Amino acid sequence: MPVGDKKVPDVVIRRLPLYLRSLESIDPAEYPIVSSEALAKMVGTSSGQVRKDLSYFGVFGKQGVGYQIVLLKGELRRILKLDQEIRIGLIGAGNLGAALVRYHQKNRVHQPLEIVALFDTDEKKIGRKIADVEIHPVECLQEKIQELKIKVMILTFPGEDAQQIVDICVENGVKSFLSFVPVPIKIPAGVKVQTADVTLELQSLAYYT
Amino acid sequence: MPVGDKKVPDVVIRRLPLYLRSLESIDPAEYPIVSSEALAKMVGTSSGQVRKDLSYFGVFGKQGVGYQIVLLKGELRRILKLDQEIRIGLIGAGNLGAALVRYHQKNRVHQPLEIVALFDTDEKKIGRKIADVEIHPVECLQEKIQELKIKVMILTFPGEDAQQIVDICVENGVKSFLSFVPVPIKIPAGVKVQTADVTLELQSLAYYT
Repeated sequence: MPVGDKKVPDVVIRRLPLYLRSLESIDPAEYPIVSSEALAKMVGTSSGQVRKDLSYFGVFGKQGVGYQIVLLKGELRRILKLDQEIRIGLIGAGNLGAALVRYHQKNRVHQPLEIVALFDTDEKKIGRKIADVEIHPVECLQEKIQELKIKVMILTFPGEDAQQIVDICVENGVKSFLSFVPVPIKIPAGVKVQTADVTLELQSLAYYT
Repeated sequence: MPVGDKKVPDVVIRRLPLYLRSLESIDPAEYPIVSSEALAKMVGTSSGQVRKDLSYFGVFGKQGVGYQIVLLKGELRRILKLDQEIRIGLIGAGNLGAALVRYHQKNRVHQPLEIVALFDTDEKKIGRKIADVEIHPVECLQEKIQELKIKVMILTFPGEDAQQIVDICVENGVKSFLSFVPVPIKIPAGVKVQTADVTLELQSLAYYT
């Protein structure tokens, strides 16, 4: 929770999991404290940025010493709401969808981020499983979101009807989207879309070539 | 190219492809001009943000009228260096890598972003093609980067040896990376890494639930 009413910039939120991941690679029994300089080096940013990012949440290191690793990990998990299970759905169980599910299940070590349902329009896929997660018909979206308390939805389908599908998700309590859909999506205030469209990413990376 | 010496924030660069994509969905013969309000609505931001983003590059709309669509598209392509071919490589032709290649080739319509080579360590994959792009042994990385003038590299491999592989890429002229690798990567100044790790994305999205 940010201190006061300051809205925390999205870029700051996107760096928090990087801090957490870096901290998780340190054995706190051996190194109980990390300096902002060391943490900055691990994630490829500056020590000033680390201190500023964490200060948004009232988290301050001890001057000249640093941050207690165990405490800082706990704080980051709490801030990111990773101290509770987050239930995720995925719409579009094609090549990309299937690869993402497999990738996530393999790499999610110790994360409470659980992909609990997949959805597709292709009848032949219904009832099949990818990495132990069942594929449901897209018609069951409303029912399954409510039943499984899905809060995050990954969108990996071609894009037709995207807005209609997103609307159903939002109406039933989905709070954030990771979208690979190649069309812009409208959402109400309080809901978040992260666009992870690979072509868009590559277009913005072209700037740096 | 930014006006003066102002460094353009990464978040601004990431919005430019969204503007471009929205403009490409308009028929300029029918609608030759777009207002900052209309463009903002299409990408889900504010008109002030649109004007500010474009002003970084000395691009200004006509007060009370808006932006000439054909000119603005040209400017955006020039800024993003999409007025030339950008050659892309991908290391790690597994499930995720293969899905990304197929997804990009299907969705890249009219984009000069060409995936020209895939790399893998698995001997059985060498010489095979995914969406018409050949898989080379990772030992040929240096040679192929130079021969094919690869400037952007997508990383979709498990992560061991990641730093060593990135170093080879950088030494041979790769300027930016789209990384799905679940370990932090160090790069020198002037090189850009966009982390597209799905688990990291989901962790930051948890914040908004």
